[in-house]
Amino acid sequence: MKRSLKEVAELVQARLVGDGAVAVSGISSIGSASTGDLVFVEDERCLRLALESPAAAVIAGEFATEETAAKPLLVCAQPRLAFARAAKALSAAAPAEPGVHASAVVHASARLGKDVNVEARVVIAEGAVIGDRTTLGAGSVIGAKASIGSDCQLYPNVTIYPGARLGDRVTVHAGAVLGSDGFGYVCDRATGRYEKFPQVGRLEIGDDVEIGANTTVDRGALDVTRIGRGTKLDNLVHIGHNCQLGENVVIAAQAGLSGSIVVESNVVLGGQVGIGEHARIEEGVMLGGQGGVLPHKVLRGKGVAFWGTPAKPVREYLKELAALAKLARKA
Amino acid sequence: MKRSLKEVAELVQARLVGDGAVAVSGISSIGSASTGDLVFVEDERCLRLALESPAAAVIAGEFATEETAAKPLLVCAQPRLAFARAAKALSAAAPAEPGVHASAVVHASARLGKDVNVEARVVIAEGAVIGDRTTLGAGSVIGAKASIGSDCQLYPNVTIYPGARLGDRVTVHAGAVLGSDGFGYVCDRATGRYEKFPQVGRLEIGDDVEIGANTTVDRGALDVTRIGRGTKLDNLVHIGHNCQLGENVVIAAQAGLSGSIVVESNVVLGGQVGIGEHARIEEGVMLGGQGGVLPHKVLRGKGVAFWGTPAKPVREYLKELAALAKLARKA
Amino acid sequence: MKRSLKEVAELVQARLVGDGAVAVSGISSIGSASTGDLVFVEDERCLRLALESPAAAVIAGEFATEETAAKPLLVCAQPRLAFARAAKALSAAAPAEPGVHASAVVHASARLGKDVNVEARVVIAEGAVIGDRTTLGAGSVIGAKASIGSDCQLYPNVTIYPGARLGDRVTVHAGAVLGSDGFGYVCDRATGRYEKFPQVGRLEIGDDVEIGANTTVDRGALDVTRIGRGTKLDNLVHIGHNCQLGENVVIAAQAGLSGSIVVESNVVLGGQVGIGEHARIEEGVMLGGQGGVLPHKVLRGKGVAFWGTPAKPVREYLKELAALAKLARKA
Repeated sequence: MKRSLKEVAELVQARLVGDGAVAVSGISSIGSASTGDLVFVEDERCLRLALESPAAAVIAGEFATEETAAKPLLVCAQPRLAFARAAKALSAAAPAEPGVHASAVVHASARLGKDVNVEARVVIAEGAVIGDRTTLGAGSVIGAKASIGSDCQLYPNVTIYPGARLGDRVTVHAGAVLGSDGFGYVCDRATGRYEKFPQVGRLEIGDDVEIGANTTVDRGALDVTRIGRGTKLDNLVHIGHNCQLGENVVIAAQAGLSGSIVVESNVVLGGQVGIGEHARIEEGVMLGGQGGVLPHKVLRGKGVAFWGTPAKPVREYLKELAALAKLARKA
Repeated sequence: MKRSLKEVAELVQARLVGDGAVAVSGISSIGSASTGDLVFVEDERCLRLALESPAAAVIAGEFATEETAAKPLLVCAQPRLAFARAAKALSAAAPAEPGVHASAVVHASARLGKDVNVEARVVIAEGAVIGDRTTLGAGSVIGAKASIGSDCQLYPNVTIYPGARLGDRVTVHAGAVLGSDGFGYVCDRATGRYEKFPQVGRLEIGDDVEIGANTTVDRGALDVTRIGRGTKLDNLVHIGHNCQLGENVVIAAQAGLSGSIVVESNVVLGGQVGIGEHARIEEGVMLGGQGGVLPHKVLRGKGVAFWGTPAKPVREYLKELAALAKLARKA
Repeated sequence: MKRSLKEVAELVQARLVGDGAVAVSGISSIGSASTGDLVFVEDERCLRLALESPAAAVIAGEFATEETAAKPLLVCAQPRLAFARAAKALSAAAPAEPGVHASAVVHASARLGKDVNVEARVVIAEGAVIGDRTTLGAGSVIGAKASIGSDCQLYPNVTIYPGARLGDRVTVHAGAVLGSDGFGYVCDRATGRYEKFPQVGRLEIGDDVEIGANTTVDRGALDVTRIGRGTKLDNLVHIGHNCQLGENVVIAAQAGLSGSIVVESNVVLGGQVGIGEHARIEEGVMLGGQGGVLPHKVLRGKGVAFWGTPAKPVREYLKELAALAKLARKA
């Protein structure tokens, strides 16, 4: 989709330097830019590379203001953000033709909104509700009485267990499983055998959440597992039963939360992080990759970075690593 | 499903205190109990909360014996276990209507037991055998000559490789893959290229096993991978080829066993535990989350807790953590 | 498939000792060998066991040369490799009958090669290309304009995102997801909300790659994620956007690579390894299970083994472990 720089500048609220009539038709990295592409730079060093590339125009930070530019510039405070927004506008593919594929199996009692796109071989069970303009990827299975909001995108082979509720504009990547049974058993002391603790709670996922490929989120045992608005989960993440995730939480690949954990808003968890049951990660904490938090522990401090197992403030952890290395050298 | 407290008391073998005619129709946590619900408590502090809740009755431990209760009580030695059993009885949903959905693809040579429930889009290959009253979730694929016992529940989009054998009352959550090729290659020293070592063994899963969402279990290379009766695997667990798991083993989410590992009965492995090939985890060992066991190592000791990488008795490990913290403080 | 030892000897380029007319019809481990089986041994101790087993013949290393054997031998420098090759020849099952199952949904514009085998319920989207003799497992979904080479084997319920390209002889196990969106967002400093960074790049997978069950590989954000020829990924592995993997790389189960990582050829990564963005693992490095590499770090040294988090040469790491244990004992 072609747009003039002037249009893009308005869209992303950037200051246009140069010819606003120049048309851009795509986005790219600087290294693979071709004519018509829009690129972005976040520092001065990259600006030169961008200007030497075949790109049509450059989104740049305020540092670019005084530049005598060989190309038109869109100058703004958050160039990466502006680029992301421009990309959306430029790549806006024609939405898939709405409709229900003939091979889909849709229960008569399911309620489908306007302009939904139900791809091949989707199964929608009894009483499920699908919002307007939502796409269900091929082979996905929507359980009984599950509810999916408007403008959602489910990729292929997703499984939504019965009763799970997803908000609007939720994206779910292929193979993800939402609303599965939590991992809870009771060991009969008389026999040593495990019997299943009831896993009959709910799963509620807020608006604007994105869930990675093959990620699994268990529903509550008796109550509810909640994922707040705008939270993003990477691939192969595990969220156990009864977890409560706030808004704008970011969890990288293969991280795992066991049961009944609270993760407050704006927390960032690195890849392969593991958190024990009933722990609490408070507002704005960051936990580095592979970090581990013991059951019932609390991590606290907006913007404070933790690392290691058991997780401690990163400065403290680095000191320990250094002390150990020194000790070993002396040995 | 409504039941009188008297009935429930008999079912879970609890001592009834109060009016046995009171009816209960569901279960819940104390916090979200409503009229008609049965709740449970494991300590005295919670008992008061339970008695103040709108719940109809309370399952409690022996500590409740002398209580002048505002509600009927079911008193027993293992209240959580009794609650789990009561939940089963109360929630007993009408089983899904048995039958083979018209969209399922069932090979003519497959043998289906009585009252099986084959959901939409299931594929059952040549020579597969499905036991009585087993449910196969939508989109699941059962490979050639695979055998699934009676009263099993497979959730949607499960893949069973050819020849895998599951016992009775096995539950498999969505997206799990059972019987896939092990990860075995031979590096040709002449070319540096890897060639596949034959992965032609079997997978045998015992009765009453439960397998989590998106978990993967490889079959044996030449021989067999075995998962013993009553063992429970959480989500995203990986079990490599030739592993031998005993009975009543519990493995939390994202733990991984490479090849040829023995895990004896009643072992508990925490989340994200990793175990190297040919290691042996003996009867009743517990290994804390993220713990790691080196190849060929043995962990021994019924009820002994291990932690860390490489795993050591938890007391020893905590001592190391403390010593390191102290060293760093002095530095 | 029965073959004479003489044939097998030629096939695997081994020296035949004994009667070449003896027929072998299968392979097995020594412990479960029966008449007609071919087994292999890599050391003298096992040779005796093999000779005492019911196996028909034994593939053995050069150490077996002088042996007065009770059975025919195939002697060669790499007995495990010879065994793998013999296994392939002996087990060569009749390939599945090619054809497109009636329940598959194949877009009119998709191009299918000769003798492809499209199993039940496969979905092939617009413009996809499938090479000769490739098998697509039941329930797999091939996205628009994706391209899959010749002689590939996709197991059931695999998802290939639009535009992903797989080479020839690629094996993909059940539930794997290839070409999903990378995990990239931009936080709007004004609102604290995350907006999606464009994930519009490509995924290219070379010839002879094998990908484990439920593994996920993201495509590039703006550019390309590449997996080189002959590389093998185990189950539940995560490869982030823009990663560049060389040839003959081996990555064990549950390892995770975040974005923009370079892994050069012949690297071996243990299970549950985690690597931070923009790190570089150079030619021939080995990294032990659960090891962690910080963002932007470089590991270097052909044949050098690293371990721990942050990863260091294994000798150094073991020294640290020993020093810490000693310190704790003294405390």
